[in-house]
Amino acid sequence: MARVSQAHLDARRRQILDAAALCFARNGFHATSMQDVLKEADLSAGAVYRYFSGKEELIAAIVGEVLASVRAAFEDAAGQYPPAPPDLLVGAVLGRTLATKASLTIDGEPAFPRLVVQVWSETVRNPKLAAVLREGYDAVGAAWERIVAGYQDAGMMRADLPAEHVARTMIAAVIGFIAQQSLFGPLPVEALQNGLRALMSMSVPESGTGTDHGSVNVPETRSN
Amino acid sequence: MARVSQAHLDARRRQILDAAALCFARNGFHATSMQDVLKEADLSAGAVYRYFSGKEELIAAIVGEVLASVRAAFEDAAGQYPPAPPDLLVGAVLGRTLATKASLTIDGEPAFPRLVVQVWSETVRNPKLAAVLREGYDAVGAAWERIVAGYQDAGMMRADLPAEHVARTMIAAVIGFIAQQSLFGPLPVEALQNGLRALMSMSVPESGTGTDHGSVNVPETRSN
Repeated sequence: MARVSQAHLDARRRQILDAAALCFARNGFHATSMQDVLKEADLSAGAVYRYFSGKEELIAAIVGEVLASVRAAFEDAAGQYPPAPPDLLVGAVLGRTLATKASLTIDGEPAFPRLVVQVWSETVRNPKLAAVLREGYDAVGAAWERIVAGYQDAGMMRADLPAEHVARTMIAAVIGFIAQQSLFGPLPVEALQNGLRALMSMSVPESGTGTDHGSVNVPETRSN
Repeated sequence: MARVSQAHLDARRRQILDAAALCFARNGFHATSMQDVLKEADLSAGAVYRYFSGKEELIAAIVGEVLASVRAAFEDAAGQYPPAPPDLLVGAVLGRTLATKASLTIDGEPAFPRLVVQVWSETVRNPKLAAVLREGYDAVGAAWERIVAGYQDAGMMRADLPAEHVARTMIAAVIGFIAQQSLFGPLPVEALQNGLRALMSMSVPESGTGTDHGSVNVPETRSN
């Protein structure tokens, strides 16, 4: 039997995973067959089954990779010292997430955001994956809460609202943007940064919930 | 043949759709069989096939309902006059979305957020559904942009950043919260409202991107 280098094995494994990622992003996990993956990878069944026993193992590998890379993007941003303000923090996570597997595209649009949505839908229906995700999320949430508490301690942000809620809202903005990318097409990272910056510029009284507070007149028509 | 009232027909159709929604939320569209739906609805095949020709028709009906109710939540909030500030606006949409099909639960948690994630994953892989979603989203986005322009015209928000980016960010916060509900369990609407309120309370210089701007010291450990 011919000897094969580890680098070759790794490259072949990567080739199969990238082909599978593209198929799953395009058509979801359940509607994708191993045949689709073989065709996308341009490999024989024998070559692929040497690395993965079947579709379930491929799904597990892809879901694991995607959850890990999104988690790493959140954790790395939280690990920067001193922490950036919310607009830059959230922009850094989104930018890094969108750069993942940037070479994989579908009709010219990045495949990764679509893959993330497929991973969520698989995670929601699989208690084991859901447990992995929740564990990672708890760690991310705790790190982000510490950053928010830092904003509050430094007097940059009102301190009478739970840091957990702010962390959850920043995380929601990032994952909501990933969902938007997959559902409505690419958007620059700057859109999220600008949006947060504009929200951060608002002046609101601390009371926060008065009926009259902050009502605003919107012109009936507007030319843009 | 026995005469059957329209009310009875409607109720039976509703019963089937709710059973299907529960199955799809729990297990996704592709892993759910018609047999699962019949069992969940506690109806015979004959009773169900009188209303729906098969799984594809059920999927189309559920996806249509879900997209329409999320869109309606966004549109109704945008239709209030005068418009509420971002925290209340976004809270209203999220509250209404989470109240949709509130009677359907999985292990005691609301099924609807999980159904929304399944609908997204189906939409991403189906160009026809994607077109329906994008059309609805364009309308919602335009309405939300007008509201943001109103904040800017009223001097409540800095006006040098695109209203579109702010609208996209608010929409992302809502859909990101829906995704969080499905992936990590229920969160009160107040969490998003408080999170936005706290972000809105931040003071940032208009320059916005200076490297030093807004850096903050975070304590290494913190007891919460």
